[in-house]
Amino acid sequence: MKKQFAVIGLGRFGGSICKSLMNEGMDVLAIDQDEEKVNEFASIATQAVIADSTDEKALKSLGIRNFDHVVVAIGDNIQASILTTLILDEMKVKHITVKAQNDYHETVLNRIGAHEIVHPERDMGIRIAHNVVSDNVLDYLELSDEHSIVELAAGPTIDGKTIVDLDVRSTYGCNILAIKRNEELTVSPEPEVKLYEGDILIIIGADADISRLESYWIDEN
Amino acid sequence: MKKQFAVIGLGRFGGSICKSLMNEGMDVLAIDQDEEKVNEFASIATQAVIADSTDEKALKSLGIRNFDHVVVAIGDNIQASILTTLILDEMKVKHITVKAQNDYHETVLNRIGAHEIVHPERDMGIRIAHNVVSDNVLDYLELSDEHSIVELAAGPTIDGKTIVDLDVRSTYGCNILAIKRNEELTVSPEPEVKLYEGDILIIIGADADISRLESYWIDEN
Ligand SMILES: Nc1ncnc2c1ncn2[C@@H]1O[C@H](COP(=O)(O)OP(=O)(O)OP(=O)(O)O)[C@@H](O)[C@H]1O
Ligand SMILES: Nc1ncnc2c1ncn2[C@@H]1O[C@H](COP(=O)(O)OP(=O)(O)OP(=O)(O)O)[C@@H](O)[C@H]1O
Ligand SMILES: [Ca+2]
Ligand SMILES: [Ca+2]
Ligand SMILES: [Ca+2]
Ligand SMILES: [Ca+2]
Repeated sequence: MKKQFAVIGLGRFGGSICKSLMNEGMDVLAIDQDEEKVNEFASIATQAVIADSTDEKALKSLGIRNFDHVVVAIGDNIQASILTTLILDEMKVKHITVKAQNDYHETVLNRIGAHEIVHPERDMGIRIAHNVVSDNVLDYLELSDEHSIVELAAGPTIDGKTIVDLDVRSTYGCNILAIKRNEELTVSPEPEVKLYEGDILIIIGADADISRLESYWIDEN
Repeated sequence: MKKQFAVIGLGRFGGSICKSLMNEGMDVLAIDQDEEKVNEFASIATQAVIADSTDEKALKSLGIRNFDHVVVAIGDNIQASILTTLILDEMKVKHITVKAQNDYHETVLNRIGAHEIVHPERDMGIRIAHNVVSDNVLDYLELSDEHSIVELAAGPTIDGKTIVDLDVRSTYGCNILAIKRNEELTVSPEPEVKLYEGDILIIIGADADISRLESYWIDEN
């Protein structure tokens, strides 16, 4: 059976979750106390209802306890976010994810039974900072405190060179996992493959090694 | 020389960028019109100043044109965000990244010279939705519309099996790039390596193939 999701609070964050879940083919009940928001999501979500989530009866009558996963995406009104979480916990909802505004909010949410707490603005700030520090790192996946996979834009220094020429593994301890050229993705490229400026290289390695590799490729420009 | 960053607006998003950039060893000028925010960042940023960024003279006197990269992280006041971007563009700041609140805001920012536009709440909503749909996908990197790298938690079905046993590549068209066990990361694991429940597998492949693999591994539970 399809998993049943409910999203409470249809601001930018909650609204985006709702849309993405629908895109992935899930069932989503969208809840907001604001009629305008609910009208906007009537044609997007499986169902959209006006309700104040701090009203226990309202949540009960929506059968919220039967949902597999409820996301609380209420922002500015921290008290409403906490009270909503408390009610969901008392109803024994299986999985509760809550947006936190600050550390105090997170501490309280942890105490009252939130299963997962997210800080969208903070976490995206960390991602953007990563991205902004280097013009070559386009995106990344943090594997551990010390290892990452990064998408690096190939600059002019390495244009026309093969993976063997660059000797990426022994010189930098990194591996080229894949190459993205135009829309084409080549996984586990052969060592004889030539790289061109504009290629996007998917590289795995220790962060320090990746930085070394990156600054070498840039310094030579 | 170190890159010089300025962050205008020290809310959750701008504040997080400022802290992350400092963590990465950059120089950051933190700007907000709110004295309290500036006091909070006095001990965090390289320098923190109270200024209204819609005041061209104030920005000029801060020498903002000489910064390598300016991030505008003003949220609710869309007009202030737009006016600030306009001033930065007229001063020919090399790289301007701006937080957008909605599509209208983005369209205007594009027209007036923002180099990069970000939607932190929307983008984090997409990431969280991805994460929430599956209990096994812990994190991911989107390589293209159709390919991703995902971190999958190994369940009981595959406990004790080797990569050869599972025949991941020919059955699912996916590759196991790395295995994370406790704090240890093994890149390009040998096919004879045994997998255990609780291992985190870093897998590359087409999204459809990854889904197939995931649902097989879950269905057998
Ligand atoms: N008690 C409540 N019951 C139902 N919906 C609520 C409740 N309190 C707030 N909301 C809704 O939650 C949504 C998000 O709240 P708010 O705009 O304060 O958060 P935000 O963090 O600023 O949003 P964003 O995700 O855009 O950053 C709003 O649409 C608001 O109407
Ligand atoms: N003209 C301005 N000059 C300088 N700082 C400003 C200006 N306008 C707003 N700010 C500051 O920008 C910061 C972020 O603005 P605001 O809180 O509206 O954004 P937000 O998107 O809700 O924040 P968050 O990142 O927490 O979601 C605030 O600290 C505010 O004082
Ligand atoms: Ca970048
Ligand atoms: Ca806000
Ligand atoms: Ca926000
Ligand atoms: Ca998950």
